[in-house]
Amino acid sequence: MTRGEMRYEGKAKRVYATDVDGEYIVEYKDDATAFNGVKKAQIMGKGEINNAITAHLYPLLEQAGIPTHFLAKLSDREQRVRAVTIVPVEVIVRNVAAGSFSKRLGIEEGTPLSRPVVEYCFKSDALGDPLINTDTAVALGWASEADLTRIRELALNVRDFLVPYFEARGVKLIDFKLEFGKLASGEIVLADEISPDTCRFWDAETNEKLDKDRFRRDLGGVEDAYAEMLARVTQTV
Amino acid sequence: MTRGEMRYEGKAKRVYATDVDGEYIVEYKDDATAFNGVKKAQIMGKGEINNAITAHLYPLLEQAGIPTHFLAKLSDREQRVRAVTIVPVEVIVRNVAAGSFSKRLGIEEGTPLSRPVVEYCFKSDALGDPLINTDTAVALGWASEADLTRIRELALNVRDFLVPYFEARGVKLIDFKLEFGKLASGEIVLADEISPDTCRFWDAETNEKLDKDRFRRDLGGVEDAYAEMLARVTQTV
Repeated sequence: MTRGEMRYEGKAKRVYATDVDGEYIVEYKDDATAFNGVKKAQIMGKGEINNAITAHLYPLLEQAGIPTHFLAKLSDREQRVRAVTIVPVEVIVRNVAAGSFSKRLGIEEGTPLSRPVVEYCFKSDALGDPLINTDTAVALGWASEADLTRIRELALNVRDFLVPYFEARGVKLIDFKLEFGKLASGEIVLADEISPDTCRFWDAETNEKLDKDRFRRDLGGVEDAYAEMLARVTQTV
Repeated sequence: MTRGEMRYEGKAKRVYATDVDGEYIVEYKDDATAFNGVKKAQIMGKGEINNAITAHLYPLLEQAGIPTHFLAKLSDREQRVRAVTIVPVEVIVRNVAAGSFSKRLGIEEGTPLSRPVVEYCFKSDALGDPLINTDTAVALGWASEADLTRIRELALNVRDFLVPYFEARGVKLIDFKLEFGKLASGEIVLADEISPDTCRFWDAETNEKLDKDRFRRDLGGVEDAYAEMLARVTQTV
């Protein structure tokens, strides 16, 4: 498989065309941004770690019945994935109040939610990924009602798999962000990554943050937290 | 009926207990606020006009099958209403992009929406009425799933009544905010007001704004716009 021209560059990854029809290569970068790009830095080794964590979890999600874009890990920083058109609606699943949710609603960080909350944001760097709802996504043509129903179902299935998976490894899954893509066939599949960049992970014993909040909030030990999460994720229990 | 102690004072109205069980008196004020209370003024005669417009529309909504808290107009500024507990979830129904929706999503004001968009906000002056969704309202105990399903149904029924009603009177209903209350029986009823404070009204011919945006945006002619809307609402067609 040969890497072709770059099709998309995001804040943390690049996507390349390939010589295989219907397949892309995703490359993970060390670049980290926060607060919609206002804060920028490199987290040494992040690309390798997030590639490894995602490449470990996606096949497990497939086994759990969740279709994904993932095909195989190619190298330290590269994955082969199925070519998708990304649905421009980011999905946030929250188990415990934290981050923007806590701030916006005046709910103390760490407050458990009595049921999972699924939030939707319009994927737009220019607008700062504003909060939307499914009516808005349909009215503005970003996704169909049927696609959004499927996306919600898959997002909750991902949650149902991940929460006990991390719990068994001493990690509370506070919240996480997902992106979905559409195959040429129209099928909705999980795309993007699952990593400390896109999830809030708290140590189950100490509540120590093991995710990108260490970078966002200048807590130090960023690289160590990412390495610790790779160790936990790949731990056999 | 005797007016008792004040139970609640909002930005535009006061609610009083009465000597009749299960009934309150609502008093409409001339006070106007915008941008979550940052901008404050009085709009002369607004209380009388908004009371008159609401007292005209609510019986028509009842006739159209939408239960409301409204019982009778008592005086220029007062209404008798059924005592309700207000559900702390404000409902915004949008037909055309405008205001915060346009700004947040980068959609030009005046762009028609291909379907109505129902948005929900947590009623909290302290937090600036933040946007939420129904998952959040349920998870935080602000409303039940069943109540929110009913609220959405009623909000869309209100829209289906009001859009042609205003159209027949030369007014485009761009968007509007509703509040709902719960009777002691548990029944959800429409509460609050329907007025130029809570709706965006544009003249159908000229797109001239006939609502609180004249105040928010310092467009002048605020009192005239409110008076014009009372004339349109009570016009026989």
